[in-house]
Amino acid sequence: MTTVLKLGGSVVTEKDNPEQVDEVSLARTTDAVAGSEVERLVVVHGGGSFGHYHAATHGVTTTQGTHDSGAVADVHGAMKTLNRRVVDALLARDVPAVPVHPLSLGARDAEGDLTLPAGSVRTLLDEGFVPVLHGDLVAHRGKGTTVVSGDELVTSLAGSLDAERVGMCSTVPGVLDAEGEVIPHIGAFEDAAAALGGSDATDVTGGMAAKVRSLLSLGAPAFVFGPDGLGAFLAGEEAGTRIDGAGTDEDESADGE
Amino acid sequence: MTTVLKLGGSVVTEKDNPEQVDEVSLARTTDAVAGSEVERLVVVHGGGSFGHYHAATHGVTTTQGTHDSGAVADVHGAMKTLNRRVVDALLARDVPAVPVHPLSLGARDAEGDLTLPAGSVRTLLDEGFVPVLHGDLVAHRGKGTTVVSGDELVTSLAGSLDAERVGMCSTVPGVLDAEGEVIPHIGAFEDAAAALGGSDATDVTGGMAAKVRSLLSLGAPAFVFGPDGLGAFLAGEEAGTRIDGAGTDEDESADGE
Repeated sequence: MTTVLKLGGSVVTEKDNPEQVDEVSLARTTDAVAGSEVERLVVVHGGGSFGHYHAATHGVTTTQGTHDSGAVADVHGAMKTLNRRVVDALLARDVPAVPVHPLSLGARDAEGDLTLPAGSVRTLLDEGFVPVLHGDLVAHRGKGTTVVSGDELVTSLAGSLDAERVGMCSTVPGVLDAEGEVIPHIGAFEDAAAALGGSDATDVTGGMAAKVRSLLSLGAPAFVFGPDGLGAFLAGEEAGTRIDGAGTDEDESADGE
Repeated sequence: MTTVLKLGGSVVTEKDNPEQVDEVSLARTTDAVAGSEVERLVVVHGGGSFGHYHAATHGVTTTQGTHDSGAVADVHGAMKTLNRRVVDALLARDVPAVPVHPLSLGARDAEGDLTLPAGSVRTLLDEGFVPVLHGDLVAHRGKGTTVVSGDELVTSLAGSLDAERVGMCSTVPGVLDAEGEVIPHIGAFEDAAAALGGSDATDVTGGMAAKVRSLLSLGAPAFVFGPDGLGAFLAGEEAGTRIDGAGTDEDESADGE
């Protein structure tokens, strides 16, 4: 069984300081991965103060592109620096991490649809490695390059790898209701619509409402949790908010392979 | 029309000094690229004293693999350092270079056959960028990771991108005959068999005989030349040794698209 784990940019970086790793949080997070017995793990991390800072400087988003190779070097270079730090932290804990850079791998067509071939990641998994991807730029037909968010990579990989569990580790303990309490289970968007009424997007890659809609469309249960829930998630237990849409209904499981 | 240019490891590095860029040669080579008007250019560079040194240290070749993530970090990390230098030299000359890392992109099956999806490179080309790939490691089913040489990447890309010209820039001025003179044209292996009788392989990725056999199998004319021939090649002229096998016979051109 394959697990896809997203580490939010706010978990691995200090969001308010450009290009600052959150050393304490990165150590704690990678300790949890190293201490687990999870097999076939793919890690995707966000951009935090590395990617978002440079993307904002150059005015590039998931839909606003750039043909400026200097801007590509800045944004992609910063994300590779952060990726190196995450990979090195995992390697230092004997997790066999290998970097995988989305700009090398994927591309968007003129409609913005992402193609992310799965062969390299699947073969790395089969050979016992832990591929570590990250929010990045990708080539985009007609727009040069645009941002691909960690969340979009998770959705793509969960599908192409037939992942059985998806974890979204951010700095909030789950999807919160109007009273600020964690909603334990979301099976349809209506379950959380009141709390998610408005988009609370504060970065270029969307907020919780978009995240919930996207996770509901997966063919696997997804969990949204904070750093405190990471150990439980990796142990195969419930953590934070469990999100499973129609794709994971038991009466549809016969369609899967 | 798409051109694939290989810059040999001996052109961009000092082969005898681990992790030393040949600054003079790199400057001269990237000046030639910047000064040309070639469109749709893909650059592939070899490993030279970056990749070969670490590959040899860890005993990894195109067929001997490693599952050691520390070895992967060493070899791949050294190649990314070299790639960064080549990309930066091109960017400094206003060539819109973008790095593409084969470990992120490709994989080998159990037979060692390489799959290198072309979508990212093709979209980057369509958007006016110059993708810059490099010899690297790739995931290899059953073997962990193995070396992929620059020459193998050139062969794969020339096919998948329908390249119309392939250039192999190394430190020799062409394929040499027994007297040390450049053979101007090779249309079949027999044309050069006497001179290539033995393999003169001195690195992990094969010598000239293997290179000629591989280039004869392409669907495009390939040129083998030294740094002095780079300007002429990029200007669309003849340079060094021209190699074109059955795939580029005029009476077969009707098969192409």
